[in-house]
Amino acid sequence: MGEAMPSPFPLPEPMRRALELARAAGEAGEVPIGAVVTLDGRTIGEGENRNRRDNDPTAHAEMVAIRAAAAHLGDFRLAGCDLWVTLEPCAMCAGAISHARIARLYYAAADPKGGAIEQGPRFFTQPQCLHRPEVYGGLAQAEASTLLRDFFLARR
Amino acid sequence: MGEAMPSPFPLPEPMRRALELARAAGEAGEVPIGAVVTLDGRTIGEGENRNRRDNDPTAHAEMVAIRAAAAHLGDFRLAGCDLWVTLEPCAMCAGAISHARIARLYYAAADPKGGAIEQGPRFFTQPQCLHRPEVYGGLAQAEASTLLRDFFLARR
Repeated sequence: MGEAMPSPFPLPEPMRRALELARAAGEAGEVPIGAVVTLDGRTIGEGENRNRRDNDPTAHAEMVAIRAAAAHLGDFRLAGCDLWVTLEPCAMCAGAISHARIARLYYAAADPKGGAIEQGPRFFTQPQCLHRPEVYGGLAQAEASTLLRDFFLARR
Repeated sequence: MGEAMPSPFPLPEPMRRALELARAAGEAGEVPIGAVVTLDGRTIGEGENRNRRDNDPTAHAEMVAIRAAAAHLGDFRLAGCDLWVTLEPCAMCAGAISHARIARLYYAAADPKGGAIEQGPRFFTQPQCLHRPEVYGGLAQAEASTLLRDFFLARR
């Protein structure tokens, strides 16, 4: 398999930063996923996957970023905030995004194996989902997929 | 509405403790939900809903208990552990239960509005769910429902 084609368009800064966080997670032996929370274009929370480092099954990049942003704002709701993440969120993270009242979700690669946005649970379409963000998928998916593919190939 | 009928059978100790944690959460102004993680019958993590106190949209009782248990074991997986919770888990908590490899889930009241086990997402039946616990619902549901109902009635 060759290198995936990088996007010909400049990436929004938060997604560029999320990819950088994903790379850092991979270098630390974690699944390479990164996330950023922004409010009015300003970063208020960042996260890398930290499951192994923190002995925490809930420490996905999105969760870490959401918790950091909420601590920063001193509010358990992130009204008006955007979340940028390098992989389609799982059910856990989709639930947290909804609980946090995230306004817009931007994600890079789709995740047929574990995603819960455009696969399986399609959580935001369920009546038990009490808040739905706007969703934009596919941004920088080539870069994000390459990171993940190379990580799992190297571990075989 | 009258008092719900208490169960005529003695409650397993972890569910009795989860109800106690739920009551404590309610007294602190949080939605009254409590959770306990056990391993071989021994409690290794407890949690109350702490969203408001901790400014943390992810701080549901189950998440707090799972994170405490994982920190206690020094492992991001809780293989062989059981989770006891007073309300049917939402999508976020169902995802965390699966990521943590919880062996058995015991919950009290069903949650038609936000549950993800026997409602809507039915997360454990999805192909994107990579680990499914055994599930036992309905234990102490009268007590758990009364706590929640009284809490929401008092807030109106």
